[in-house]
Parts: sequence; C-alpha cells; structure tokens
Amino acid sequence: MSILCVGSVALDSVETPFAKAERVLGGSATFFTSAATLFSPVQVVGVVGEDYPLAKLDFLSERGADLSGIEQRPGESFFWAGKYHSDLNTRDTLETRLGVFADFEPKIPDAFKASKYVFLGNIDPDLQHDVLDQVDAPDVVACDTMNYWIEGNRESLNSLLERVNILIVNDEEARQLADEPNLLKASRWIRDRGPDIVVIKKGEHGAILFADDWLFFVPGYPLEEVFDPTGAGDAFAGGFMGSLAQAGNLEATSLRRAMVFGSVMGSFAVERFSVERLIDLSRPLVDKRLHEFHEMTAFETHMGIEQRV
Amino acid sequence: MSILCVGSVALDSVETPFAKAERVLGGSATFFTSAATLFSPVQVVGVVGEDYPLAKLDFLSERGADLSGIEQRPGESFFWAGKYHSDLNTRDTLETRLGVFADFEPKIPDAFKASKYVFLGNIDPDLQHDVLDQVDAPDVVACDTMNYWIEGNRESLNSLLERVNILIVNDEEARQLADEPNLLKASRWIRDRGPDIVVIKKGEHGAILFADDWLFFVPGYPLEEVFDPTGAGDAFAGGFMGSLAQAGNLEATSLRRAMVFGSVMGSFAVERFSVERLIDLSRPLVDKRLHEFHEMTAFETHMGIEQRV
Repeated sequence: MSILCVGSVALDSVETPFAKAERVLGGSATFFTSAATLFSPVQVVGVVGEDYPLAKLDFLSERGADLSGIEQRPGESFFWAGKYHSDLNTRDTLETRLGVFADFEPKIPDAFKASKYVFLGNIDPDLQHDVLDQVDAPDVVACDTMNYWIEGNRESLNSLLERVNILIVNDEEARQLADEPNLLKASRWIRDRGPDIVVIKKGEHGAILFADDWLFFVPGYPLEEVFDPTGAGDAFAGGFMGSLAQAGNLEATSLRRAMVFGSVMGSFAVERFSVERLIDLSRPLVDKRLHEFHEMTAFETHMGIEQRV
Repeated sequence: MSILCVGSVALDSVETPFAKAERVLGGSATFFTSAATLFSPVQVVGVVGEDYPLAKLDFLSERGADLSGIEQRPGESFFWAGKYHSDLNTRDTLETRLGVFADFEPKIPDAFKASKYVFLGNIDPDLQHDVLDQVDAPDVVACDTMNYWIEGNRESLNSLLERVNILIVNDEEARQLADEPNLLKASRWIRDRGPDIVVIKKGEHGAILFADDWLFFVPGYPLEEVFDPTGAGDAFAGGFMGSLAQAGNLEATSLRRAMVFGSVMGSFAVERFSVERLIDLSRPLVDKRLHEFHEMTAFETHMGIEQRV
C-alpha cells in the first residue's frame, strides 16, 4: 500500500552540544518519508525553493518514494535554525524563514488521489482540509499538528478531527488540545471528536496508542548518545504509518507492531544529524532493533511455581 | 523466601489538589511491606515513638509480616507533612520531624539474621552498613537511597554499593549518583561499583532494569486519577522484591516479572492515601493488573505477510 504524505520539505541548521550542521535536509515530509520508505512506497507532496538540493532526495526515489508532487517555486526554501540545550530535551529556535512554504497550497497529483493511506504532516489545518478534499476515498487518514495551530486555528483543527482516523501528537500537544493534563482523559476527549486512534509521543519516554477499549505502550530505545533529536517525531510517524500500510489493515496486531516500528525509526533518526542515519539504514537493521524492543519489554505472566495466596 | 526490610515507619500528613489526610501510615518500610507481603513474608526492622498507632499495622501481620523488629521508644514518631502541586509530579515538604528516628540504630533480631533477601530502605548509608554487618549471608541485598545521602554521605554510600546486588533508585538519584545525565551510562557507572542490577524508577514513565548485557523496560500504569503519589517508589520496591523472593532466584525471567509487579504495586499505591489501597488488595487483583500490563506491551515481531526488502 502506498502512502500519500503532505508536509514540509525544508532546510535545517542545527546546533547541538556536540556539533553543528548547516542547511541539511529537514522538514516533516522529509523525515516521514525517509522512515516510511523502509516499509512502503510513499507519494510526497510539498514545496521547495530554487535553493533546494533536490538531488539529495534521490535516495528516497531509489527506495520507492514518488517525489513528483514536490513543486519547486521561485524563492527560498523553508529554513529553520535551532540550538539544543545541553540535555537535548529543550531547544531554542534561532531563525524561521518560511520562504515559498508561506504560500504552500498542496496540489495532489491525479496519480496520488487514489491513495488508501494519507499522512497529513504538521501544516495549517485549512491546508490539511484541502488535501482531504482532493483525495478519493482513503482508508486511513493520519494527522499531526502542533501548539501553533491548536492556539491559532482551533476551529479548523476541531472540524479536521472529524475527518481523521489517527491523530499523532506529542504529550504536550494532546494536553493542550484537550485542555486536560491526564493523558488517558485527553485521549478520550480527542477520540470523542473523531479519531478512532490517538498516538501520543512522549520523546525519550516512548509513546502510547489509545484505541476504543485498549491501549499499547512502547518505550523509547535507550541510547548512549542522542546526537540530534530533530525529526524524531516525524520519523516515528513514518515508521508507524509505513508499517501500517505494509500490513494493510488496522487490526490490533498491526497497530501494536506499527508503534514499535515507530519507536525504532525515531531512535535511529536521532543517532545522526538530519536524515543521515535513515539514508544508510536497511530493513534487516530495522527488524533487528524491533527484536531488541521485544527483548526489552517481553515477560512471562506465569510464575512457573505454586502461587502464594 | 522471607525478606528483611529495614526502613522508616512514619506518620504522614498529605495534601493533594483533591483532599487532605492527617497523620496516616507512612514511611519506606511501611509502603514496602504493604506491597511485598502480597508475595512473600517480610521481617520489618524500624523504630516508632509512643504516639504510633501500631494496631493499624495489624493487616501486615495478618498477611505474613513479622513486626517484632519494630522498636517503640519514648518520644515522637517520624513525621512528614507535604503538599502536592496541581500536576502531582512535584511537592513541597511542609514539615519533617525525625523524632525517635533521629537516633535509629537498627538492631536485627536473631530470628531475622538468616534472611536471604534484604531490602535496605532509604536511611543513612552508615546504618545500611550496620544492617549488613549484622546479617549472616543474604543471597540478595537491595538498596534504596536519596539525594540527601548522595550529597551528605557519599563515601559511605560508595562503599555500600560494593555490598549491594540491586540498587533501586529514581532517575534523578541515578543521574546525581553517577554525575551523568544519560541513564544508560549512569547505570553502567553504578554497576561498575558493585550492584549487578540497577533499577531506575521514572515515576509515571515506568522503570528500567539494567543488567550485564540486557535491560528491561516496564511502563507506568495509565491511571485516570493519581490520588496521592506518596510511597509509590517504596511500593514499587515492595512488589519487585516480594516477587523476586517468591521466585527465589535472580534469573532474567524472574527479574522481568518482578519489574512488572513493581509497577503494578506502585500503580495501586497512588490510587488512595497512604497504604489504604494496598490494605484492601488481594493477589488475584494484583495478577489481573499484571495481565493488563502484558496486554499493554506485548506485540508480535513477525509480520505474517511477505516482507518488503
């Protein structure tokens, strides 16, 4: 199953306590697609400026991405510069220049309209609506958002939720969206407004999937060095949706495994700058880490000895 | 297998955003024993003042605790008063009166000295040494500590680590002890100083066990209401050690299950004030929640369909 992904294709300058990277590949669609193509083909819709090094995205085409929906327009590409603090959990945005992204109006190519899996990256909810207006009849619509839209375009976002099957957000966004600090209650608030499934990402602490009468928890992969956290959430979404599209259904077994692949891809993403680690990655390495997650979390419920009552 | 537990037996006054409780059962040994006795007998060593409502500990004797090592001395019991902030993750200590606990010198009754499982609750490392000097030849020594001792009696604590098999601390304590923000590296630092096993508790985010060449992750149980977080860490330690002592070995299977029982007991502890929820608890309810943890974390690694390469 192919996934339609609409989001930002950007350039990032990132400074961490360890090193600096200048104008490297970034953006939600870029990270998502770098992760998802390890599992399923992806059709990408986005916009870049004349300055974008499109040849650097060739690795995506080579592993099954269709980049024909990335429009190149006169002007500058979306540029973000940030600096991480010493614990890598917080960062300062040094500069944001929207460039051609400021006037982004997603145009879904005809060849992409029949997509059964759609991922709406973190863009204006009005544009996310526009994308859904253009596609035929997707089986699964997943969506990301952020505090900026929760505060700035709440009405559009609320009506978008009715059209979404899976909302993928981080813990702070879930709390803000539902105006509720408890994640169980926040997820119920969100699910009452449309999505059957809510995935809440908690950074290094993993992620939780909330469904109708069950939930699933995946930890973060314990790393000795988090090199650059940028894009971890989008790589998570890519691993999650890629694995789901590969399974071709929303059964609990598929959703559980998708959560683990999400955490796997997020953990690889942070091991180097930009999408560097994802470029090198092969599916056997991904599956190896999936098995490590199994080792990290599996336990036997049976005591194997007489129970004390 | 019986567990020797040495720690504080206290009275707590607790204020949460929801309610207040005055002079209720508290202390590390109290919470530990309330949880551990669901699995194994516990021998308790501690000290209380003349004001302590010892009859309220009868439920512990009824389910296999030997409280003959709790000395009652002239003076006041250890008293702690605290107030939780609205998110329940932080609290202010309003009052601490050590009372008879200030002069606590653990005397291990002869009948307790052959214990094979020892839990050293969070007390002065010098006293933890004293306890180990008095016992015969325990198979498993587990130990808790806190920032106060890490800052105030580091030398004694470092030499204690050489005598300990399992260190059970929270994430901030692990980071402070090892002077290392990364938990993987901090656990290695600690393990290099003695303990074969390090258990790091992360509050609502669960806990991680670090062993020689493997680790195990258990999430926190998602609760709609955390009523009172006091004692959750000690209840975790009680579930963990109780389950281990019941298994009677340190095999990986036993350690993994012990971690889950630890998280189970921590989750019950926070559902009401003091040890109230633990008093009511029966083993079938505990096992039911263990199975819920299994449902929350189990996944199949096999795709069940042809892999895309």
